[in-house]
Amino acid sequence: MMTVDTLPISPERSGCPIATTLDIAGDKWTLIIVRDMLTGKKRFKEFLQSPEGITTNILADRLGRLVAAGLAEKTLYQEHPARYEYSLTPPGENLISVLQAISKWANTFVPDTWTPPAWFMERQP
Amino acid sequence: MMTVDTLPISPERSGCPIATTLDIAGDKWTLIIVRDMLTGKKRFKEFLQSPEGITTNILADRLGRLVAAGLAEKTLYQEHPARYEYSLTPPGENLISVLQAISKWANTFVPDTWTPPAWFMERQP
Repeated sequence: MMTVDTLPISPERSGCPIATTLDIAGDKWTLIIVRDMLTGKKRFKEFLQSPEGITTNILADRLGRLVAAGLAEKTLYQEHPARYEYSLTPPGENLISVLQAISKWANTFVPDTWTPPAWFMERQP
Repeated sequence: MMTVDTLPISPERSGCPIATTLDIAGDKWTLIIVRDMLTGKKRFKEFLQSPEGITTNILADRLGRLVAAGLAEKTLYQEHPARYEYSLTPPGENLISVLQAISKWANTFVPDTWTPPAWFMERQP
C-alpha cells in the first residue's frame, strides 16, 4: 500500500479543497516559485532572476510559507553567512498536475502565452 | 475546425502561462467564485452565502475583474434597482480542469478536505 505524506496544515476558511489550496498558494507568486523549483532552481538568487521580477521580501516570505506548509524544504549549503537551498517535497512536486492544467488552460485561451517544454507538460507527479 | 474564443487579456509579468493565469486568478477568492458559478450560483447574495465568508467589497471587485478578463459575463435581471446575474463564459467554464487538478491534489495531501461531488470531478470542460 502506498502511503502518502500529508501536509502539516488544516483547512482554514472551509474544508473545500479549492479554498484550502488557495489558503496556501492563492497569490501571484507561490506557484511561480514552485514552477521554478520544478525546473531545477534551488537558490535565492536563482529565483530572483526569473523574468517576473519577484522582490527579495516577497521571495523570502513565500519560501518561508512553502517550508511551513510542508511543500518545500531547505538545506544549509554554506555557513558564514548561512545560505540555504530549497527543494520541493513530494506533495510540492505533485503540484505539477495543477501547473500543467493551468498551462493548458492559458495556452488555449490567453493569446501570446509561452508553450511549456514537453518534459514539463508530460511529467508525472 | 473548432474555433476558440481567446480572452481580451495579454501576458503582463511574462509570457509564462502560469504567471499569466496568476495575473488574473492569483488570489484567495477568484477561483472560489468560479467554483460557485460552476455549481450554479449566479447572484451576488448567493456568492456571499458561501462558507468562506467573502466580503461584499472583495466580491464586487472580483466579479468586475472576472467580467473584464472575459471569464464571466453579467446580465441584468432586475431594474430599479439594477441587479445582475453572473455566469461563466466558455473560457471561464474551462477552468474546471484547473479546479479538478487542485481538488485532487488537496484531497491527496491535505487532511480533512471535502471530496467534491462526482459530477464536479468528472465534468468535461
